[in-house]
Amino acid sequence: MAKEITPRSEDYSQWYLDIVQKARLADNSPVRGCMVIKPHGFGIWERMRDALDAMFKETGHVNAYFPLFIPKSFLSKEAAHVEGFAKECAVVTHYRLKNDPNGGGVIVDPEAKLEEELIVRPTSETIIWNTYRDWIQSYRDLPLLINQWANVVRWEMRTRPFLRTAEFLWQEGHTAHASREEAVEETLMILDIYARFAEEWMAMPVIKGVKTANERFAGADDTYCIEALMQDGKALQAGTSHYLGQNFAKAFDVQFLNRENQQEYVYATSWGVSTRLIGGMIMTHSDDDGLVLPPKLAPIQVVIVPIPKPSPELMEAAEKIAGQLRAKGVRVKVDNDDQNRPGFKFAEYEMIGIPVRLGLGQRDIAANQVEVARRDTKEKSNVPLDTIADHVATLLDDIQQNLFERARNYRDEHITKADTWAEFVDILENKGGFVYAHWDGTSETEVAIKEQTKATIRCIPLGWDEEPGACILTGKPSEKRVLFAKAY
Amino acid sequence: MAKEITPRSEDYSQWYLDIVQKARLADNSPVRGCMVIKPHGFGIWERMRDALDAMFKETGHVNAYFPLFIPKSFLSKEAAHVEGFAKECAVVTHYRLKNDPNGGGVIVDPEAKLEEELIVRPTSETIIWNTYRDWIQSYRDLPLLINQWANVVRWEMRTRPFLRTAEFLWQEGHTAHASREEAVEETLMILDIYARFAEEWMAMPVIKGVKTANERFAGADDTYCIEALMQDGKALQAGTSHYLGQNFAKAFDVQFLNRENQQEYVYATSWGVSTRLIGGMIMTHSDDDGLVLPPKLAPIQVVIVPIPKPSPELMEAAEKIAGQLRAKGVRVKVDNDDQNRPGFKFAEYEMIGIPVRLGLGQRDIAANQVEVARRDTKEKSNVPLDTIADHVATLLDDIQQNLFERARNYRDEHITKADTWAEFVDILENKGGFVYAHWDGTSETEVAIKEQTKATIRCIPLGWDEEPGACILTGKPSEKRVLFAKAY
Repeated sequence: MAKEITPRSEDYSQWYLDIVQKARLADNSPVRGCMVIKPHGFGIWERMRDALDAMFKETGHVNAYFPLFIPKSFLSKEAAHVEGFAKECAVVTHYRLKNDPNGGGVIVDPEAKLEEELIVRPTSETIIWNTYRDWIQSYRDLPLLINQWANVVRWEMRTRPFLRTAEFLWQEGHTAHASREEAVEETLMILDIYARFAEEWMAMPVIKGVKTANERFAGADDTYCIEALMQDGKALQAGTSHYLGQNFAKAFDVQFLNRENQQEYVYATSWGVSTRLIGGMIMTHSDDDGLVLPPKLAPIQVVIVPIPKPSPELMEAAEKIAGQLRAKGVRVKVDNDDQNRPGFKFAEYEMIGIPVRLGLGQRDIAANQVEVARRDTKEKSNVPLDTIADHVATLLDDIQQNLFERARNYRDEHITKADTWAEFVDILENKGGFVYAHWDGTSETEVAIKEQTKATIRCIPLGWDEEPGACILTGKPSEKRVLFAKAY
Repeated sequence: MAKEITPRSEDYSQWYLDIVQKARLADNSPVRGCMVIKPHGFGIWERMRDALDAMFKETGHVNAYFPLFIPKSFLSKEAAHVEGFAKECAVVTHYRLKNDPNGGGVIVDPEAKLEEELIVRPTSETIIWNTYRDWIQSYRDLPLLINQWANVVRWEMRTRPFLRTAEFLWQEGHTAHASREEAVEETLMILDIYARFAEEWMAMPVIKGVKTANERFAGADDTYCIEALMQDGKALQAGTSHYLGQNFAKAFDVQFLNRENQQEYVYATSWGVSTRLIGGMIMTHSDDDGLVLPPKLAPIQVVIVPIPKPSPELMEAAEKIAGQLRAKGVRVKVDNDDQNRPGFKFAEYEMIGIPVRLGLGQRDIAANQVEVARRDTKEKSNVPLDTIADHVATLLDDIQQNLFERARNYRDEHITKADTWAEFVDILENKGGFVYAHWDGTSETEVAIKEQTKATIRCIPLGWDEEPGACILTGKPSEKRVLFAKAY
């Protein structure tokens, strides 16, 4: 049934594309690099968004909305930022079309040229800090804790659904603070929220760390990140939280009167996660039969399939079970399709990742039981009808937990120390995963390692034991090990 | 306190702008015609979105996401659509900036010109129907009931916060059906949802009707609408639901195999409401002291103000009341600001439209009572502390109901029949509101009436008594009266 999916062992990259298509998560669009997020994929994103939104609000953040367009000149105001974001972006130059006088459909009206071109936001620091200048006068206006759910556009050359698309959906938090300490605390608090969300909702273990200068966000003093490990041994940056210092406040002249009655530039953070998380979720849990979804993010958690097909009696029994499950807050679908056979349906529900499938036939009802199949392990068991609701509720928790532990075991087995260059290269080429090795702290060495192995420093992990040593490439002194990996 | 707001009687248009600014709903942005939706305004939009989203989902719709950009050629594929939407739109022509070799900051890289320009979506029928072609093969794939929450851009010349902005937020539903009957049924079902949302959530009475050909959506066979009446006697189109026939299916060649095993073009609907609703809500309820919010949409429903300022005892009593209210699902804020006086705070909370204010002083506690002030009528009363939670919960319902009835009475008093041209002109000039009059059914007459009076046909109301008569302008025979008004 799942033969349409390329096995992971054969071609992981094609397997990923097959999953995205066959699990009905996204489609290509006629616009280069832009995808259509299909209802099943968007249902997952809605659950991610709602869970994160609640976590942001619990910690005092509010949502707002800033313009899609950024005047071109804004991008130039922060020196590092322009280098990072001006290059590949969508530029609006005109505001009108007209009928082609030569009959060739519609053409851009040359008379409707904008005085200053507008950039479709690749990220919103510039327009937001230009606005904050009007909102912040005194320390009493701080902290300003604002988040935005939005679409952004970066004109990527090589795109891949969810992982790297020209347009993507994300949230971007932009906060303003009266002190460096408070801003750094915010940056780290958000990093904790991201890690908690990844592990508790996505069942995706992550390592919290700080980026090297090379990998920092354009305009940040420090970039913190959560890094996950995919099944093919490549790392995925799943979220970033930036301490921006006073860089944007200075670029946009945002000062406040502090408690000492003096003008001071405001301290900033920004942070974001995107629809890329869906790609990370796919590559953490799914298998050769299709998508595997953590129950907390599954739009449908349980499907009840009457076997061999719907009948009034089977549907009545199925609806009764569904009612019991819904009363426990479980999201249930009762399959009422009378066109396809059970085998076809089972494969289809496995393909789209429904965590639990209940099969209910005439003989099951006679035996007062139902067949329960879990998607993660493919195990089946017969469960008495009387206790089915409690059983399924517990099972969903078990699946969530099992997915996390399975992924964490895999990840932990793929963090390998290397102390020689030969070991380092061997691990990257043959085992994959994170390599925990010494680095002399220079950008030159970081670049040289990347050129020779394609591995980058994913992060300097936070709170791990530190031991001095010698750089894996140059042999120069190193204060502590850092995490290398090939990455998406 | 509210002296910063221009009175409605003096300048309704300026009053509106003052409310938007002073109630902290939105700000202007540096991008022409684009606004920043501030946290208080966005909090209202979030409640609107969540309520509507639940209503769409209850009726079987799911959300998805389609690209921001539309290839220019797509706009030309539906003949009427291109006339309506090609004119004023943002056009992306380039995908890269570069450093100005002459040192003038960043400039558009002339080498990064797109082969085909992209339009920032003004609405998504074209890109969605181009996608549906791949999703629909047989009647079994139908109906397709999809909604999208998105930003859209229309390059309006005269903008006004919420009511008409270059970029705005909205939802757009796009459904596909196997028969005309089913599509028309969907169109009307959505119209009912819009009317129910407007009346039950926004407390804004609306008239359901159908548009004349002149006022139809570009590409629709029929446009249905809900029309509301603002305090200044002008009408506001608050939502539209379109029956698109087979127009987009033919333009994008979307056919399905019907139950008779024949290829047939798919029947379509589209429907949308936008952040414009916030403008309608403001102009339905607010007064010269500020915003008035229907409790169901208020981000904060109740504020508790310790008088004259926070003390441990007052805060403890306030938190106790807050806890009782939260247990009933009421959204409460306890004011803990010790900088400003009660009078200032009261004016501020009236300005931002919090429906109920509780004032709690030492003497109130001694008397086992609290002062309750409602925003809609400004009435105050003392309520025993023991029953305050029940009292406030009931009061919120009363306010919601009172706002609706007040607005409905005003609206009903401003639907006036006119049987002569003199009456018609007199009502429009002196009384305002809807004029219910006969029209000969021709576009020429509709245009002539608009040129002479600025009034347009808002809609042909659904389900109202029909009586034949003579056209108000031409005297020609008319089957039924229609609703005229000046409109936003």
